[in-house]
Amino acid sequence: MPAELKGLNEECGVFGVWDDSQAAQRTYFGLHSLQHRGQEGAGIVVKSENGRLLAHKGLGLLSDVFDRPEYLDELVGRSAIGHVRYGTAGSRGIENIQPLVFHYLDEDIALAHNGNLTNAVSMRRKLESDGAIFQSNSDTEVLMHLIQRQKQPKFADRLKASLREIRGGFAYLILTKDAMYAALDPNGFRPLVIGQLENGSYIVASETCALDVVGAKFLRDVQPGELVQIDDSGCHISKYTNDTQLAICSMEYIYFARPDSNIYGVNVHLARQQMGRQVALENPVDADIVVGVPNSSLSAASGVAQQLGIPDEMGLIKNQYSSRTFIQPTQELREQGVKMKLSAVRAVVEGKKVALVDDSIVRGTTSRYIVRMLKAAGAKSVHLLISSPPLKYPCFYGIDIEHTRELMAANNTVEEMREKIGADSLHFLSLPGLIKSIGLKQDEPNDGLCVAYFDGKYPTPLYDYEDGFETPKTADDHALSASVKQHQVI
Amino acid sequence: MPAELKGLNEECGVFGVWDDSQAAQRTYFGLHSLQHRGQEGAGIVVKSENGRLLAHKGLGLLSDVFDRPEYLDELVGRSAIGHVRYGTAGSRGIENIQPLVFHYLDEDIALAHNGNLTNAVSMRRKLESDGAIFQSNSDTEVLMHLIQRQKQPKFADRLKASLREIRGGFAYLILTKDAMYAALDPNGFRPLVIGQLENGSYIVASETCALDVVGAKFLRDVQPGELVQIDDSGCHISKYTNDTQLAICSMEYIYFARPDSNIYGVNVHLARQQMGRQVALENPVDADIVVGVPNSSLSAASGVAQQLGIPDEMGLIKNQYSSRTFIQPTQELREQGVKMKLSAVRAVVEGKKVALVDDSIVRGTTSRYIVRMLKAAGAKSVHLLISSPPLKYPCFYGIDIEHTRELMAANNTVEEMREKIGADSLHFLSLPGLIKSIGLKQDEPNDGLCVAYFDGKYPTPLYDYEDGFETPKTADDHALSASVKQHQVI
Amino acid sequence: MPAELKGLNEECGVFGVWDDSQAAQRTYFGLHSLQHRGQEGAGIVVKSENGRLLAHKGLGLLSDVFDRPEYLDELVGRSAIGHVRYGTAGSRGIENIQPLVFHYLDEDIALAHNGNLTNAVSMRRKLESDGAIFQSNSDTEVLMHLIQRQKQPKFADRLKASLREIRGGFAYLILTKDAMYAALDPNGFRPLVIGQLENGSYIVASETCALDVVGAKFLRDVQPGELVQIDDSGCHISKYTNDTQLAICSMEYIYFARPDSNIYGVNVHLARQQMGRQVALENPVDADIVVGVPNSSLSAASGVAQQLGIPDEMGLIKNQYSSRTFIQPTQELREQGVKMKLSAVRAVVEGKKVALVDDSIVRGTTSRYIVRMLKAAGAKSVHLLISSPPLKYPCFYGIDIEHTRELMAANNTVEEMREKIGADSLHFLSLPGLIKSIGLKQDEPNDGLCVAYFDGKYPTPLYDYEDGFETPKTADDHALSASVKQHQVI
Amino acid sequence: MPAELKGLNEECGVFGVWDDSQAAQRTYFGLHSLQHRGQEGAGIVVKSENGRLLAHKGLGLLSDVFDRPEYLDELVGRSAIGHVRYGTAGSRGIENIQPLVFHYLDEDIALAHNGNLTNAVSMRRKLESDGAIFQSNSDTEVLMHLIQRQKQPKFADRLKASLREIRGGFAYLILTKDAMYAALDPNGFRPLVIGQLENGSYIVASETCALDVVGAKFLRDVQPGELVQIDDSGCHISKYTNDTQLAICSMEYIYFARPDSNIYGVNVHLARQQMGRQVALENPVDADIVVGVPNSSLSAASGVAQQLGIPDEMGLIKNQYSSRTFIQPTQELREQGVKMKLSAVRAVVEGKKVALVDDSIVRGTTSRYIVRMLKAAGAKSVHLLISSPPLKYPCFYGIDIEHTRELMAANNTVEEMREKIGADSLHFLSLPGLIKSIGLKQDEPNDGLCVAYFDGKYPTPLYDYEDGFETPKTADDHALSASVKQHQVI
Repeated sequence: MPAELKGLNEECGVFGVWDDSQAAQRTYFGLHSLQHRGQEGAGIVVKSENGRLLAHKGLGLLSDVFDRPEYLDELVGRSAIGHVRYGTAGSRGIENIQPLVFHYLDEDIALAHNGNLTNAVSMRRKLESDGAIFQSNSDTEVLMHLIQRQKQPKFADRLKASLREIRGGFAYLILTKDAMYAALDPNGFRPLVIGQLENGSYIVASETCALDVVGAKFLRDVQPGELVQIDDSGCHISKYTNDTQLAICSMEYIYFARPDSNIYGVNVHLARQQMGRQVALENPVDADIVVGVPNSSLSAASGVAQQLGIPDEMGLIKNQYSSRTFIQPTQELREQGVKMKLSAVRAVVEGKKVALVDDSIVRGTTSRYIVRMLKAAGAKSVHLLISSPPLKYPCFYGIDIEHTRELMAANNTVEEMREKIGADSLHFLSLPGLIKSIGLKQDEPNDGLCVAYFDGKYPTPLYDYEDGFETPKTADDHALSASVKQHQVI
Repeated sequence: MPAELKGLNEECGVFGVWDDSQAAQRTYFGLHSLQHRGQEGAGIVVKSENGRLLAHKGLGLLSDVFDRPEYLDELVGRSAIGHVRYGTAGSRGIENIQPLVFHYLDEDIALAHNGNLTNAVSMRRKLESDGAIFQSNSDTEVLMHLIQRQKQPKFADRLKASLREIRGGFAYLILTKDAMYAALDPNGFRPLVIGQLENGSYIVASETCALDVVGAKFLRDVQPGELVQIDDSGCHISKYTNDTQLAICSMEYIYFARPDSNIYGVNVHLARQQMGRQVALENPVDADIVVGVPNSSLSAASGVAQQLGIPDEMGLIKNQYSSRTFIQPTQELREQGVKMKLSAVRAVVEGKKVALVDDSIVRGTTSRYIVRMLKAAGAKSVHLLISSPPLKYPCFYGIDIEHTRELMAANNTVEEMREKIGADSLHFLSLPGLIKSIGLKQDEPNDGLCVAYFDGKYPTPLYDYEDGFETPKTADDHALSASVKQHQVI
Repeated sequence: MPAELKGLNEECGVFGVWDDSQAAQRTYFGLHSLQHRGQEGAGIVVKSENGRLLAHKGLGLLSDVFDRPEYLDELVGRSAIGHVRYGTAGSRGIENIQPLVFHYLDEDIALAHNGNLTNAVSMRRKLESDGAIFQSNSDTEVLMHLIQRQKQPKFADRLKASLREIRGGFAYLILTKDAMYAALDPNGFRPLVIGQLENGSYIVASETCALDVVGAKFLRDVQPGELVQIDDSGCHISKYTNDTQLAICSMEYIYFARPDSNIYGVNVHLARQQMGRQVALENPVDADIVVGVPNSSLSAASGVAQQLGIPDEMGLIKNQYSSRTFIQPTQELREQGVKMKLSAVRAVVEGKKVALVDDSIVRGTTSRYIVRMLKAAGAKSVHLLISSPPLKYPCFYGIDIEHTRELMAANNTVEEMREKIGADSLHFLSLPGLIKSIGLKQDEPNDGLCVAYFDGKYPTPLYDYEDGFETPKTADDHALSASVKQHQVI
Repeated sequence: MPAELKGLNEECGVFGVWDDSQAAQRTYFGLHSLQHRGQEGAGIVVKSENGRLLAHKGLGLLSDVFDRPEYLDELVGRSAIGHVRYGTAGSRGIENIQPLVFHYLDEDIALAHNGNLTNAVSMRRKLESDGAIFQSNSDTEVLMHLIQRQKQPKFADRLKASLREIRGGFAYLILTKDAMYAALDPNGFRPLVIGQLENGSYIVASETCALDVVGAKFLRDVQPGELVQIDDSGCHISKYTNDTQLAICSMEYIYFARPDSNIYGVNVHLARQQMGRQVALENPVDADIVVGVPNSSLSAASGVAQQLGIPDEMGLIKNQYSSRTFIQPTQELREQGVKMKLSAVRAVVEGKKVALVDDSIVRGTTSRYIVRMLKAAGAKSVHLLISSPPLKYPCFYGIDIEHTRELMAANNTVEEMREKIGADSLHFLSLPGLIKSIGLKQDEPNDGLCVAYFDGKYPTPLYDYEDGFETPKTADDHALSASVKQHQVI
C-alpha cells in the first residue's frame, strides 16, 4: 500500500419513484431529506408520457437548483430519479451533475450513482481504446458504456453483465422508459432501501429518512449483489452475483447518515448513543459535564453522559445560518470561521471539568479551536472523547476522506494529538468497541461493517488503487483540499 | 382593550463598533451571530475617512446581501453600525432596510433600530403637519425628524430631548461623523450590551453572543433610560430620563435570544433549562422519555428530563437545510412543509410515553403536526409541556406576535387546545413559575420582566394602540399574515 | 466664471398616464422608447385603487429592472408615472432611483424629475437649517420639502409657489392620489409633451416618440413656466410664472433626442439633416463619399451628402450587441473597446477621400480611433465634419457634459484638435449655422435655443454655480469620470 | 419532396486561435463580433499548459455567459476555440451549448460546429447500434464518434476519413492538445476564413469581421472540402475530398453575415447595395423617397435610392434597446412588440410615396405592421421592394428557415401577399438578378451560390430529409415554433 493514498469520489444521495402522480415533487422532498449526503449539486430526471427523459440539474443546494417554480413544474411525468452530489470545487463543471442522461437508439437512459468504483480508470481506458467517448470525469459513465457493449437482448441482462464487470462501492439508480433499476455492489458498501407509498408506488432511496418524508413505508434494505427492477408489473429483485459479503460503511453509522435513518435495521442515532456509552465505558474520564459538538455528536454525547452518570449539557451552540463569506481573514481575524459556526456557553462550562464528545478527528484543527474556545469560556479541564477509532486510512468506496498525510491520526500518536489539540486527555473508541456498539450481524466478518479507515484492511482488492498503479489522471487534486476544508468546518 | 390587536413591528438585531481597523468586517461577523433576530434584510454603514457614511443594504440573509466580496471591501472606514431585520413580506421595499441614512447640513447620520414605538403614528402625524416628509414606513424616521426639530447646539442634547418624546420599546444605534450613540427605552424592553475589543475599541450589540464572536469582552448591559456616547475620547454613559422601570421582554429568554447570550446577567440557556425544570415540577407527567422540539426547546427539554428523572432523548430531528420551496402542496402533500423540517426517530419513540417539550404555542398547527408525527412513529402517549404560559396578548414593544384572534390560547381553554392538538395532556408553565425560573431582579415588579403577552398587563400606556385609537394606517395588514406563516414554520 | 466647471446632474426621461386600464404597461412601453435618455436606473409608480402609491424601481435598463413578470403585474392601478435615469457609477445607491415616493399626512406623493436645479444646494441648506432631512443626493427632494413648507390649502397652489422658488432646468412629473402634475421651468430647457390616447386618457412624456409607441395623439408641447394638472375632470394648464423665455437645449436636437421625436414642432432627424447640409455648405470639403458615425450621426451625414452631391456610404458598422466586458485591456489590446463597437468597411472606404460626419467632439479620443480605423481600412483622406459648434462650456440645466479641462475644444484650437485626431481637415458647424438649421422661433433670442455650451452665454444666472461659490458638496467627483467614460464609448 | 419540410438546425459562429498569449480574450472579442450569428448560447474552450481543455459555457449572449471577470481569467492557455449558438427555446439544455468537450484516452477534444448534417440521423442510428452513446441532441457528436471508430494512427487521418462520411453543411473547429483543425463541407455552404495576427498566430473564424476586431490580417477563405491543420509547425491545408462544388449560402449575403465581412472576396454590404440597385432596376416603382427597414436592409435601400435617383431617407428608426418583455399583450396592446422595436418618422414620410426596402419576407406579419405604421404616419403610398427572391423552401445546411406552411411566399401569389401586407405594390428581386448582384464566380453553377430556398433545387441529395424519410426523432418540434417567433421579431 503506498504511503500516499486518497479517496477520489464523493458521497452522494439518490432517490427514485416509479409510477406516481407527483413523481418530481416526491423526488424533490426525498432529495431534500438526503441533502446532508451532498450539497454541491442536484438534479431530477422524469420520464415524460412519451418515454423521453426530462432533466433539471444545477450546482448548489437543491433549493438553489430549483429556485423557480417552473423548474419543477416542467418535470411532468409519473416516474423520476434524483441525485444530490457531494462534489468538489475542482470539478465545477455542470457536466458532472447527476443524474446523467444518455441517448441511445432513440431511447433515453438516466443514471444516478452513489459510491466509487475501484476499477473505473482501467475500465475507462479499455472502453476508450475500444472507441468509447466520455463526456464527464465521473465513474458513472463507465457503467453506461459497458451496458452498450453487451449483446443480450434484454436491458436487465445487459445491466447485470455490466455490474459484474465493475468493482468498488456503488448504489445505482437507473431510469429508462420501461423501468427503474436499483443496483448495489457485492459488499453493500453504500446504503439503499426500498419503500412503498400508500398508493402502491415503489420508492428507492439512500436512507430511510427519505421514505419517511414522503410518507412511504419501509419494505427492505437492498442486499449486496442485488438488482431491483421496478416496472408496471411490480418490484422484482434478483441477484446479479452470488459472490457477496456485506461490508456496509461504518462511517455511515458514525457520522454520515441522518440519525433518524435505519441501516440494515440499526437506527443511526441509537448506534451513536451506544458508541458514546462504549467510549465512556472504555475511558471513564473525570468530568462534571458532557458537551457534544453540535449537531453530529449530540447522539454520542448523550450516551457518554448516561455512562458517566453526569449531565449532558449544551455547552456549545451551533449557528444555524450559513457561514459562507467572502471575507479573507486577516491574521487578526483567524479562527473567525469556527467562531461563526460554534459558540461556547460560558454559563454552562465555566469552572467545569468538561467531557467533550466528537465523532471523529480528521486534521485536528477544528478540535483545537473548540478546546481553546471551551477553555476561554472558563472550562477547568477538557477531556476529548472521540466516538470512533482513529481515522488512519482512506476510503475507496465512496466517501471522501483525506490524503493520509493530512489525517492527524495517521501521523501522530494519541499523545501527540492530545498535545496539539490542547485537551487534557484524548480518548478514542476501540475498534471492537465500535463494532460492538453498532451490533449489526455478529456472524459476518466485522459484523458486516467496513472498518478499513481504522485498520487498513480493505474487504476487497483495490484494483486501480493498488500499490504502483498510478493515481487516475482524471481526478483533480484541488478536489481534495477543497473537501478537506469542507469537512473541517464542522 | 380592543378585541383585535396586533404587534406591528419587528424584532431586529443591531451591532456597532467605533474606531477599529476592521470595522465593517467586525460588524459583518457580529450581525451574523445576530441573524436569528432578523432574516429579511441586512445592512452595514461605515464612516469613511472624510466623515461621509457609506452603506450597503439589501433584502435577505446577511450572506445574500453581501454575496460579492467587493460589497464589504468597499465599506472602508474605522466605525460602523449594522442591522438585521425581521421584516415582513408586505413591506418588500428596500427603503425599509436599515440602517437608514439621512443627509442634513452636509452631515450624514445613520440610524438602526430594534423595537417598536407606541406613539409613532401620532408623532408622525404631528411631524408631518409641521412639514416633515417621510420616505419609509419605519418608526425609525420619527426619531430623526424629532432630532432635527430640537434647537440645542449639541447633537447629544438634541438626541436626548428627542428620546424623551418617544414611547414604546427601542434600542437605537446612531452613527455620525463624530460619535456612535446607543440609546435604550425607559423600560429596557429590548436587550443591548456594551463590549470592548482587546485593542480598546468599543462595541454595542443586541446580544452578548455578538461580543463573543468578535472576541470582545462584555462590559455591561445598557440600562433603561441610558444614552451611550462613544467617540474618540472614550465611552460616556448618561441618563436621558430618570423615569425608568426595567421590563425586559420575557420572550427574549423564552425563545428569541440565543442560548449562549446573557441578558442582565442571566444566561438564556440556563433560564430555559430552569423553565423546563419548573414546568415539570408543576406538572409531573407520566412519561418514559423527554423529547424537545429542536432547536429552540432543547434547553427546556433538558430541564424537564432532569426534573422528571427520565432520559432526554433525540426523538425529533431537524433538517439543517433550507426548506423554502416553490412547490404548491396539493391536498395529498399537505403537512409536507413540517415534514421537510422535522422528522421523528421511530427507534427512539416507538412504544414510549413521550413528554414533548416546546417553548410556546402560537396557532397550534405545528404542535398538532408534531404530535401526529410522534404517534405515527409509535409513541404510546404524548404529553405536551410548554415552557412558558399561554400566549394571549400581543406585544407592542418590538416582537411580532399575532392577531389575538389567531393566538390559540386567546380563544381556547387548555383542554380545547389539548384536544385540537391531539396530545394526551397539555401543560403550560405558570406565570409565577416563569418569573421565578428566570430569576432576574426580585425587587422589581415581575422581577423586571415584561410578561404582558401572558397577563395583558402592559407596563406602560399604549398610546396609539389604546382602545378606540385606529390602527396605524401605514402598517400593512399583509405583514401580519406573512409573519404568522414565518413563525409557524418552526 | 471659474475655470473649473462641471455639469452635475443627469439627463433623464419621464412618462406618465392618468386613468387608463393599462397604466403600468403603457408607462413601461413609454419608458422603453425613452431608454436613450437614461440607462442607469428605472422605476414606475402606480396609484392603486385605495390611493396609495406602489413602486418598483431598480438599477440598470428597464428590461433589467422589470425582469420578472410579477414586477409589472403587481403595479395595479389606473394612473402611473415612470422615470429612466442617466445616473452615474458614483451614486450607485438605489435611493437615488426615481420616481421618489414620499409619505405625508397619510398621503403618498411621487416625483420624477428631468433636469438640474441651479439653486438646489443653497435651497437644500436653507431647508436643512429649517429642519428638513434629506434621504437622497438628488435635487428632486428639494421641491418636495418646499411644497411641504407652503401654507396654501390646495396642493396645486403649494406646488406653484414652490416652483417659483427653484431655478435651473426642470421637467417634473408628480403623482398624487388626486392628480398627475407636470411642470416645466421658465426657460423650457428640457422637452415635455402632452398626448392623449384614443380612450381619452392623458399622457405626459419627455419626447413625442413615447406618445407614438403607446398610440397616443400629440396634443401640444408644455410651454416654459406652465403647470399641467391632469385629474378626473380633465387636463388643466396654467402658468405658475409669466417671467419666461424659451431656451430649449440645443443638444436635444444635436444628439440627445430620438430622431423620430419632434420638439416644439421641429423634427429632430430633419434638424440634424439640415445641420449636415449647413456644415457642408460652410465647409465644402473635397471628398468622394460621406460616412456618418452610427447611429447618432447618420441623419447629419445624409445632409452632408446631399449638400456635397456625393454618395452617403455605410463605411462604418456598429455592432448591435452589448459591449460591456470585464476584460482589462492589456497594452496590446488597447482600442479594443472601440473596435468592439465600430468597424470600418474596407470595401467601401478603400482608396476613397472620406467626409466623416460626427455630431460632436467631447474629449476627442473616439474621433482619433475612428479616423485611424478608416485610414487603416484604406481611406485616402479623412475630412471630419462636426454637425455642431465646438463644445466648450458645461451645461447646468440637466445634461452631463464635461469638466471644461477635459473638453477638447475648450483647450485646443481647431488646428490643434485636427492634428491630435489625425484628420486631414476638421470643420465645425458655425453657431449661426446651427441656429438656422434648427430654425425654431426666429423672434426669440437664439431662436429660442440654449447654446451656452458653445458660447458660454447662459440664459439665466447660475446661482450656486456662480464664480466663487463652492461646488456642491453632495456631488460626487467619481460621477464625472464615470460619465466621461460613458459618453466616450460612442 | 414532402409538403411539410423544415430546417432543423441552427446558424452559428465559430472562432479559434492557436498559440497566442491572449487566446481566451481574442476568442471573446472574435465571438463578440460574431454575436449576430447566434444569441442563445456561447462558450470558449482553452488548451491549458498541461494539454487539458478548460471550458466555460452558458446560455444567452456572450456578455451574459462571461458576466464575471474570473470566468475569462480562469481560461488560461495559448490556444482556444469558441462558439456562439443560434439555439432554440426547445433545447434549453446546457448540454447542447458548444464547443462540446470529449474525453478519450486521457486526451480532451473540443468541437465547435456551424451547419447542419443531412445524414446525422442515419449516422447516429448506425453508431448507436454499434454501441455509441450520445449525450446531446446535437449533430456535432456524430463526427466525434466517427473519429473514434477510425483505425488510422494519426488523428488528422481519422478526422479526414470521418469527414468523408458526413453529408450536409458544416464548418468545424476542433481543438486537441496538439493542433487546431478547421474543416469545411464539400460545398462550402457556410463561410470560414483564415487570418493571422501580427505576432504570427493563426486565427480561424466564420467571418472576416472577426479578424478585423482582433487586428488579424485576412489570409484566405477556407475552400470546400479542405481540412486546415494549425499546430506549432504552422498552418497546413489539405483536401479531404476532391468531390467539391462551391455552393455558398446566398442568405449569408442577403441578410445573415455582417456588412463589413467579405465572403469569397465579395463584400456583403456592397452585394446588398447591388441587390437594391437590381431590384429597383427590375421594378422602377414610382416613389418620392426610399426607406429601408433598419438595420439589415439599409445597404439595399441605398442601392434602391441610387437606382431610382430619389433620396434614401431615415423613415424608420430602430430602438437600440432590448425589447424582451414579460408583458402579455392584451388585445388592445397588440402590435406593441413591433412598435417597441421600430418607429416611423412622420416628418419624413408624411405625404410621401415611399419605396420601402426589406431583405426578405418570412411570414409577412412584420411587413404588414411596418406598412401600416408608415401609412399611419402619413405615407401616401408604400411600395415594398424585397432585395431577394420569394423564400419558398427550407434550408438543410444550417440556417433555420420555416416550415413551408408558414413561409408566406410558399402559399401565396405575390398579389395575394401584397394584399395581405397592405402595400400598394410588392416586388421581389429575380433569382438571376440576385445571382448577378452578388457576382461571385461566373463559371460555377449559380455562380457558386446555394439558392435552393428560392428554387427548391438543392445542390446535394438530402439523405435523411428525402421524401418518405421520417423527420429525425431527436429534433424538438417546439424548437421550430420558437425560432419562428425569433425570426419574426425583426
